[in-house]
Amino acid sequence: MQRRGLLLILSSPSGAGKSTLARRLMEWDPAIRFSISATTRKPRPGEEDGVHYYFKGREDFERMVAAGEMLEHAEVFGNFYGSPMGPVQAAMAEGRDTLFDIDWQGGQQIRNSALGRDVVSIFVLPPSIAELDRRLRGRAQDTEEVIAGRMAKSRDEISHWAEYDYVLVNDDLDKAFNDLLIILQAERMRRDRQPGLSDFVRGLNKEFEAR
Amino acid sequence: MQRRGLLLILSSPSGAGKSTLARRLMEWDPAIRFSISATTRKPRPGEEDGVHYYFKGREDFERMVAAGEMLEHAEVFGNFYGSPMGPVQAAMAEGRDTLFDIDWQGGQQIRNSALGRDVVSIFVLPPSIAELDRRLRGRAQDTEEVIAGRMAKSRDEISHWAEYDYVLVNDDLDKAFNDLLIILQAERMRRDRQPGLSDFVRGLNKEFEAR
Repeated sequence: MQRRGLLLILSSPSGAGKSTLARRLMEWDPAIRFSISATTRKPRPGEEDGVHYYFKGREDFERMVAAGEMLEHAEVFGNFYGSPMGPVQAAMAEGRDTLFDIDWQGGQQIRNSALGRDVVSIFVLPPSIAELDRRLRGRAQDTEEVIAGRMAKSRDEISHWAEYDYVLVNDDLDKAFNDLLIILQAERMRRDRQPGLSDFVRGLNKEFEAR
Repeated sequence: MQRRGLLLILSSPSGAGKSTLARRLMEWDPAIRFSISATTRKPRPGEEDGVHYYFKGREDFERMVAAGEMLEHAEVFGNFYGSPMGPVQAAMAEGRDTLFDIDWQGGQQIRNSALGRDVVSIFVLPPSIAELDRRLRGRAQDTEEVIAGRMAKSRDEISHWAEYDYVLVNDDLDKAFNDLLIILQAERMRRDRQPGLSDFVRGLNKEFEAR
């Protein structure tokens, strides 16, 4: 049955498992489109345009924002980052979902955009701050200052948990992933995401009339 | 984690499999409470008060309606039927869900009641009217007139499909039941149905402060 693609927003503090969940979700259903951000910052070695980012000039970026072609955008350390609307609409037209791995500010903007009704937002919480700390340190040999900065950012991110439709506590990755699948599958079944139902019921009514 | 019980409304034309789905759901999670209707009609042989119905005098029933103690009610062939609010609130207080096997009129009233935000409503459609007809005839040896009356009622019921949160087409009972489970599990995970999350995040913040 014809389905309307949805916008799945996944947010969490760094280290809560969001990226792993996103990766597993894309493996589970390769038809899901991952939203690639546009940015005005210069590509780093190995970064490809259209794969890691859409690299844009500042003028081009600002024109897109002015034309309403960015679902959300923000300035970070003098560079602009944003989620272009076009590919999202293209995916929706094909009945495909788009996955956004973004922070609370991006989530807030998309929820308040013209596509807000199509948003399903999930916040992933760590089981504890001790565990979050452990996962952040496990990644690399960072200085205490860098770690402290990340923890401050995590606290700010967590403070927005109540703006999301669903909240998962990731104390078991398999359980959290299973919960994520359940949410996505249920949300796909919502009546207003199945435009094919109108035709189906029209068919039932024709059957009633033919009796 | 502390959970807020929800009100699961299941509606469908007679013969679409709603009662079978409801029964299997109660087996899957015996903590779900099935909403027993109150009625002013006299008990039939074998019917027990508090099991099949809550049998009430007309005065008692009308007093409950006036006091706002009925989530929904209707008059059918001179008898009143309704869903008492008390047991629903008791179940919710224990974090238990209540299942309603009711028609679109009852669904509409509960959705517009004080507990409307706690409602998850699912409409079950038959795969075809030919199949619905076959299932209705399979049940008993009814006259063509009785069948025609039921079909007219089915058509009226189906006309309200678009008022529901979710719509399932029951062409495979196991698939429909699995979809029902996915919906219920996802809806239980909604942030606003997990009041325990506030305490959990308060704990995370205490951990941040103690660092």
